[in-house]
Amino acid sequence: MSNATPGNISSAALSRFCIEALRRTGMSETDAVNSTEVLVTTDLWGVFTHGTKSLHGYLRRLFGGGLRPTARPAVVAEGPAWAIVDGQSALGMVTSLYAMQTAIARARTQGIAYVGVRNSCHFGAAGYYAWLAAREGLIGLAMANDIPSVTAPGARGPITGSNPLAYAVPAGKHPPIILDMAISTVAGGKVFAAWMLGKPIPDNWIVGPDGRPTTDASLFPRNGALLPMAGHKGYGLALLIETLSGILSGAQMTWGIRSWMLDDTSVTTGHGAAFLAIDVNSMTPHQDFRGRVDALIDEIHAAPKAEGSERILLPGEREWQNHQRAQVEGIPLPPDVLETLSRAAELAGLDMASLR
Amino acid sequence: MSNATPGNISSAALSRFCIEALRRTGMSETDAVNSTEVLVTTDLWGVFTHGTKSLHGYLRRLFGGGLRPTARPAVVAEGPAWAIVDGQSALGMVTSLYAMQTAIARARTQGIAYVGVRNSCHFGAAGYYAWLAAREGLIGLAMANDIPSVTAPGARGPITGSNPLAYAVPAGKHPPIILDMAISTVAGGKVFAAWMLGKPIPDNWIVGPDGRPTTDASLFPRNGALLPMAGHKGYGLALLIETLSGILSGAQMTWGIRSWMLDDTSVTTGHGAAFLAIDVNSMTPHQDFRGRVDALIDEIHAAPKAEGSERILLPGEREWQNHQRAQVEGIPLPPDVLETLSRAAELAGLDMASLR
Repeated sequence: MSNATPGNISSAALSRFCIEALRRTGMSETDAVNSTEVLVTTDLWGVFTHGTKSLHGYLRRLFGGGLRPTARPAVVAEGPAWAIVDGQSALGMVTSLYAMQTAIARARTQGIAYVGVRNSCHFGAAGYYAWLAAREGLIGLAMANDIPSVTAPGARGPITGSNPLAYAVPAGKHPPIILDMAISTVAGGKVFAAWMLGKPIPDNWIVGPDGRPTTDASLFPRNGALLPMAGHKGYGLALLIETLSGILSGAQMTWGIRSWMLDDTSVTTGHGAAFLAIDVNSMTPHQDFRGRVDALIDEIHAAPKAEGSERILLPGEREWQNHQRAQVEGIPLPPDVLETLSRAAELAGLDMASLR
Repeated sequence: MSNATPGNISSAALSRFCIEALRRTGMSETDAVNSTEVLVTTDLWGVFTHGTKSLHGYLRRLFGGGLRPTARPAVVAEGPAWAIVDGQSALGMVTSLYAMQTAIARARTQGIAYVGVRNSCHFGAAGYYAWLAAREGLIGLAMANDIPSVTAPGARGPITGSNPLAYAVPAGKHPPIILDMAISTVAGGKVFAAWMLGKPIPDNWIVGPDGRPTTDASLFPRNGALLPMAGHKGYGLALLIETLSGILSGAQMTWGIRSWMLDDTSVTTGHGAAFLAIDVNSMTPHQDFRGRVDALIDEIHAAPKAEGSERILLPGEREWQNHQRAQVEGIPLPPDVLETLSRAAELAGLDMASLR
C-alpha cells in the first residue's frame, strides 16, 4: 500500500479486520471470509451505505442471538429450475451467497433459475449477488423485502419496504453493467442527512403525517414515510419484489419483518430475498452476447452529451472506477463508517489501529 | 347490450369489427380472434392508448408487407427452461401469445421459464401477456424494446426505447395484481396532448435540444427526448429490458429497430421482447400463495389513507373496475380511438356502423 492516500484504508487491512471480528462471533473461517468479501467489495465500489458500515449491526445480532453464527442455509424445496432456501437465520451474506450460487448452478443446466429465500436478514448490497452471476458469464438479479418505510399513492404511512432490486449483465471488453437501486425516491439516510444539516428536502422524497408530500425532513421516520420512485411505478415494483422475495419464498412480509438495526438483537428478522440467474451461454454464442452488450455500451458512450456533461455513464461504471482507484489508493471510508467500525472493534475486542 | 351507455361500443361488436378487419389482410381466423382478444381486453381495461387504437397501424403494415399475415412464429433455439422464438414478422400479438404460452408450458415443468423473441413488432399492452400467466395461476412478466425515445442522465438525445415492463401476480379472492409501465416518466402521447392544448409541461417529462429539462412541449419529439422515470433508475431498467428483449433474443436493438407507426409499411420493424413465467404451484401450496397475496392486498386496502384519498389501489385494480363496468355498459372509446377505427374501417373496407 505504498501508493495509499493518507487516511484511506487498504482493502487487505479492512478485510482482515472484518474476518477477525466475524470469527469472534463463532462464525467459520469460510463464512467470515466470504461475507467479508461482500462487504469490502461494496466499499471498494464506493457504496459506503451498504458495506462495512453494517458490520457493527451484524455483530450485535450475531452476539445477541438474532443471527446464528454457525447456521447453515439449506434447500428446503426444489425443482429443476428453482429452489427455496431456508437461511436458518445465518448472516444475510452467508445465505445470499449460497442462494445465488444455487441459482447459478441450476441456470447452467436449465437456462434460467429462481431461488427464493426465507429466514434471512439484511443482505447488504443486492448488486454484489447480481455481480456474482455476471462474473461467471450469467445475467443475475437479486432483490429483497424489508420493513415498511415507503408509502404508496393514496396512503398516509409506510406500505412496503424500500425493497432493493439489482441486476448485472456481463460484457466483453467492458466491465459488467450493474444497477443496484431501492424503490424509494431516495434512501432514508439522505433524509436524515438533510435533517442533520437543517436543510429542506425536495418535495418528492417523503410524505408527512397527512400523507402529503413535505419538504420538512424532521418528520421522517416517526411522522413520515419515504415516497416510492416515480409514484405508482415504484410502488408497483415494490409489490413485485415483495411477491418474489417474501410471498413465494415463505418469508415474513411487510409488518411481519423485524428491523435488523432497531429491533431487539435476540430476535430473528425473517427477511426474504430472491435470486435469478440466466445462462446466456446456453442460449446464444458466448462472444455474440458479449459483443452485443459491448456494442450497446459503445453506442451509449458515443451518444451526444447534455450541456455540461462529459460522459454518459453505464450503471455501475462509476463504481468500477471507484473500485480500481481504491485498489491502488486505499478505500476513502467516510467518517460515519469509521465511527461504526470503531464500535464494531469495541464489540469484538479488536484494535482500530489494525486498520492502519 | 340493453344496458349500454349511449356512445359506448359493446365489446362484442368491437371484437367482430377487429376480427373481420384482420381477416381481410389474409390472417387466419384463429390468429385474428386471439389478436383481437388482446386489443379488446386492453380497451375493456380502459388502456385506450394500447388497444384497438393501434389496429389501423397494424392493418397498414399487414397490407404493406412489413407484417406478414400468415407468418407462423417458431422456436429456433431451446433448452429445458427457455426458448428463443422467431416471430417471422407476424403481428406482435400473434408472436407474443405464442411466446408467453411457450413460457407458461415450460414453467409448469421447470418452475420458471424465459422466452426471448426476435422479429416481432409492437405488441400492444405488455400487461395482457403477463395476465395470461396469472390467469393460469402463474406469475408472468412481459417486456419489449422499442425505437429510442428516452434519454439518459448526461445525454442530449434519445438513448433507449420507452421499453414497457409488465408483471401479473395471481391472487385468491381478489383479481390479479397487474402493473404495466413504460420506463419514461410519461408517455410521448401525454407530451403531444399538452402541446395540442398549448400547455407547459412539468420539468421532469422531457429534455430539450441541449439535454436539459424543459417545460416546452413543442420541442418533442424532433428536438427533445423523454426523460426516464426516476433518472438513472429508469435508465438502468431500460437497459435490463433491452438486454432480455433485444440482446439475448437476437432481435434488433435501439437504433436498429424501425418505427411500427412512422417507417415505411413494407419494412419489418425487428422488435424484440421477453416473457417470463413462474409456476407458484410447483413451489408452494396453491392456496398458501394465493392466501398470502390476498392478505397483502387486504392489508394495503386497510392501511390509513392520505388526506383526500378514499382508497389505496393495487396495480391493475382500476383497470379491473373499468373492465367490469365496460362489460355491462359498453366501452367508452375516446374520440381519438374512434377516429383511428374509422381509418381502419376505410382501409379494410368495413362499415363503421357495424360498431353500433
